[in-house]
Amino acid sequence: GLQLDPQNPDSLAQARMDFYSQLGTETDKYLLGKMYFDTKEYDRCAYHLKDCKGSIPNFLRLYAQYMAGEKRREEEGQGVLASTDGVTTNNQLVSIIQECTKLLARFPQDPYLLYLYGVVMSKQNNYKEAIEVLVRSLVIQPYNWSCWMEILTCMSHIDGLDSIVKRLPKQLVTTKMFIVVCHQVFCQPLDLVQNFIEELETIFPQFHYLTIQKALLNYHNLGYAEAEQIFDHVINLDPHRLDDMDAYSNILYVME
Amino acid sequence: GLQLDPQNPDSLAQARMDFYSQLGTETDKYLLGKMYFDTKEYDRCAYHLKDCKGSIPNFLRLYAQYMAGEKRREEEGQGVLASTDGVTTNNQLVSIIQECTKLLARFPQDPYLLYLYGVVMSKQNNYKEAIEVLVRSLVIQPYNWSCWMEILTCMSHIDGLDSIVKRLPKQLVTTKMFIVVCHQVFCQPLDLVQNFIEELETIFPQFHYLTIQKALLNYHNLGYAEAEQIFDHVINLDPHRLDDMDAYSNILYVME
Repeated sequence: GLQLDPQNPDSLAQARMDFYSQLGTETDKYLLGKMYFDTKEYDRCAYHLKDCKGSIPNFLRLYAQYMAGEKRREEEGQGVLASTDGVTTNNQLVSIIQECTKLLARFPQDPYLLYLYGVVMSKQNNYKEAIEVLVRSLVIQPYNWSCWMEILTCMSHIDGLDSIVKRLPKQLVTTKMFIVVCHQVFCQPLDLVQNFIEELETIFPQFHYLTIQKALLNYHNLGYAEAEQIFDHVINLDPHRLDDMDAYSNILYVME
Repeated sequence: GLQLDPQNPDSLAQARMDFYSQLGTETDKYLLGKMYFDTKEYDRCAYHLKDCKGSIPNFLRLYAQYMAGEKRREEEGQGVLASTDGVTTNNQLVSIIQECTKLLARFPQDPYLLYLYGVVMSKQNNYKEAIEVLVRSLVIQPYNWSCWMEILTCMSHIDGLDSIVKRLPKQLVTTKMFIVVCHQVFCQPLDLVQNFIEELETIFPQFHYLTIQKALLNYHNLGYAEAEQIFDHVINLDPHRLDDMDAYSNILYVME
């Protein structure tokens, strides 16, 4: 796994070196598999990596298997004969759970295998176990933002936040960022996270994703003028940004 | 640019370090731009990198601009009102040529800027100048296979091969590979490249792309049984491979 210290720029180069030294003799095989993955040839990627021993290529193999299943699920969900009640499921999930369990017995501290296991649990609507294993992944690798976002999809209410956060270092920027996003998604009062936002803005002064969280919190709290002003500012700096444009459009409509 | 010595595995780690040290203070900006590029947000990528000074981010910026133009060209080429005579052109080409020329004055030895310049020349059907500049790129960075393949699209006949190859080191594996592919594409006799194929097979014993060239050369020379046998072998090892399946299908049809 990639272990980063954001305070130390050299740690990125070091992490990259560690990553490849961990791959060892499977580096070439992994790199070709990664190419197949990047060009969305998921079945080919999984097959290519089938005999690998290390945790990194095995994670990629199972993740490719998962993506292959998602791709087929989406294709089957289209067309006139498709069910429209969301019943179409990823037919790879059971096999991935079995293989992931075996691999986790050999690599119990691999944060990416834990993450994938959590994703699959979440897709099976087993939210409680999903959150449990995703938090275990974050304790080891707290900078995997996809893992935080998967936890969010497992939460039905802001009430679950405390029990998740108390298991993770409070000083982590990602913990603070997650608290802000959680309050935004569940339409909580802005002043509950005002301090977190100000602190994060000091660390990341030009981070549009964070700025937009502030705009959305204002929007949910009926601060339309403030929200519009923030959106205008971000769009001026990042004019091709598409994320959250639906909210911006709503704000402009409401203010008309 | 990434300078590799395939004989030395450590050169890959070294090349990676050199790459990031060349990016210097623009590393973060480049990495975010690369993320936009990888998610096909080409306009956003180009805009994000607009104030960069180094040759690497500027190459990515212009390449993103090129891809944005290609994407729009493809979109405009669809639908009932689209011209079907291939007249739709990438409207970014003129601007890319101007900017590439300026950048090449500052970075005359950058193989990727030379490559992009060649691609744009090729898209403007200026094949002679395209080949000229693409060969200059390969002299500096002979492992950019896309550059070799762009030269191939500029060639109308096998006769052009000699004047290209004589400007490049004969001992390079990519030069030898190009000679094989060129003979295959222009349906030349198999025995002209038999020695090259055997030599390359010794260096890359499991390289399916090379093996398939042999199959296609057999196919063009009416050796259907041999071609089918090679295809069967490769498909057995790489069952999800899609490349050249049209040729395989033709072979099976002819042999029926």
